[in-house]
Amino acid sequence: MNVVPDLPAIRAAHERIRPFVHRTPVMTCGTIDALAGATIFFKCENLQKVGAFKYRGATNAVQSLSDADAARGVVTHSSGNHAAALALAAKVRGIAAHIVMPTTTPQIKQDAVAGYGGQITLCQPTLAARETTAAAIQQRTGATMIHPFDNDAVIAGQGTAAVELLEDVPELDAILAPVGGGGLLSGTGIAAKALRSNIKVIGCEPALADDAAESLRTGKLVLARPPKSVGDGLLTNLSERTFGHIHMHVDQIALATDEEMLAAMRLVLERMKILIEPSAAVALAVLLNGATNLRGKRVGVIISGGNVELARLAPS
Amino acid sequence: MNVVPDLPAIRAAHERIRPFVHRTPVMTCGTIDALAGATIFFKCENLQKVGAFKYRGATNAVQSLSDADAARGVVTHSSGNHAAALALAAKVRGIAAHIVMPTTTPQIKQDAVAGYGGQITLCQPTLAARETTAAAIQQRTGATMIHPFDNDAVIAGQGTAAVELLEDVPELDAILAPVGGGGLLSGTGIAAKALRSNIKVIGCEPALADDAAESLRTGKLVLARPPKSVGDGLLTNLSERTFGHIHMHVDQIALATDEEMLAAMRLVLERMKILIEPSAAVALAVLLNGATNLRGKRVGVIISGGNVELARLAPS
Repeated sequence: MNVVPDLPAIRAAHERIRPFVHRTPVMTCGTIDALAGATIFFKCENLQKVGAFKYRGATNAVQSLSDADAARGVVTHSSGNHAAALALAAKVRGIAAHIVMPTTTPQIKQDAVAGYGGQITLCQPTLAARETTAAAIQQRTGATMIHPFDNDAVIAGQGTAAVELLEDVPELDAILAPVGGGGLLSGTGIAAKALRSNIKVIGCEPALADDAAESLRTGKLVLARPPKSVGDGLLTNLSERTFGHIHMHVDQIALATDEEMLAAMRLVLERMKILIEPSAAVALAVLLNGATNLRGKRVGVIISGGNVELARLAPS
Repeated sequence: MNVVPDLPAIRAAHERIRPFVHRTPVMTCGTIDALAGATIFFKCENLQKVGAFKYRGATNAVQSLSDADAARGVVTHSSGNHAAALALAAKVRGIAAHIVMPTTTPQIKQDAVAGYGGQITLCQPTLAARETTAAAIQQRTGATMIHPFDNDAVIAGQGTAAVELLEDVPELDAILAPVGGGGLLSGTGIAAKALRSNIKVIGCEPALADDAAESLRTGKLVLARPPKSVGDGLLTNLSERTFGHIHMHVDQIALATDEEMLAAMRLVLERMKILIEPSAAVALAVLLNGATNLRGKRVGVIISGGNVELARLAPS
């Protein structure tokens, strides 16, 4: 069976997006290594444009469109980093981005999308309302739907972070990435296993939003109990597409509590002087809470983003 | 007159400390450029070891010692980043660091010094008590005093940040650095004017601790009115030595209020995802408040450090 996207597709995405994205740094921290008992290489996608890896996938999707399709714009529904990422990716190509956001979206996130030139349509805060509203815009404008994760071009784009990390640090024993809808983890798993067959790929998930862990354990796509976590980027269910990739390429889903995620976020801020969002902290939380068996190993961690309200940062 | 340190001394310091310090990244941010009306290149010494440029000067001083002198250790009095920097620099060379700290020093700063192996002696919180206590240790142990800024080797080490910044971004119109005791600004001025004679060198100071501005204005060393600012790294007076360098190489001292510094700190955290301390934010605050005339210019900013209590970060 020919699985798409594969490593060549991710490499093609990498060439396509290279002029538009930051090659983010890989950082290390001796103090955190000592706490975790492992040598950790942090791929800092919080320093990516729009503050998140999502800009990779959105850029690959937008830059992959034909000129005729691009001229009709793009549309998505998202209240998070994908919305801002798609708005900026479309602006860079000079096309319209229609962003459907629930009325409950914090003003600061609406401002970010508007600041990148996204055209916001508010809708009721249900998945049905989001999909209906987006479909209506699609029908009216002919815009191409760019789903936050259930999209091959998006998954291929997200996989480019792992390619860069393994270029910079080839000898990794394991690579960890957060899992929400599974776009980042799918791309990471495809790239990492193709580049280094014996690497362990570990998805990291909030204990209160453990649908990916349940899905991998049972071998079939499980929907979340109503998820609830400070990791607001990780509340989404997998799709059949991302579950397929994860089932094939991911060795383990490891869990962390909200408290562990917030503590990891503050540790990174205090010791590494970089801001990461709670969703991005789940992988370090997992390394610190013992849910993985990686003592003495060389571990890559994809820091997924840095968009967090500052009020979250005060010690609890 | 042969002024010491000069650019060759700074270049020698650079070679000497290269194996021990991070070559910190230079970051940019389009949003902040738009707000400031200038193109800003941030030299991120908050990502330096111990979270501050101070590690450059301390390392140069410690690595410059003869083996015989080094064997007797080093001593300083400081409650801030220099204390942690000297403790780590001494640990790296395998020698003792005696750190005199006032009893009022927050526990978190004492812990940082102790964590790097520094031997702490507490004293009354007056300059006289600090100097007397340090002198007694010096007499007892034969340790070399490494002053936080009134020291040629320290000044030469601090100047290496500007050398790196101008290597990475040669075509700068101006370079901005905070000024407290003046070690960083002295080293920056010496290096920048020698490398690029037409560059403007601007010191940045809290409006409530404006002794350097007064000194430059009157042409003689002025002691501060009792200084008071969130920029706790910038409360120190210049010395005759640093005033001499600043008088010779610095074009302007620009001021910012505490509110402007805290707002700049939060702006950098929100948009650039890096943590900088209030003292480090003074240069950006100056670019944003109009105290300089740098619209349309290419401006280097030395981000001096990132050691800040997280409680400071919540919006006011």
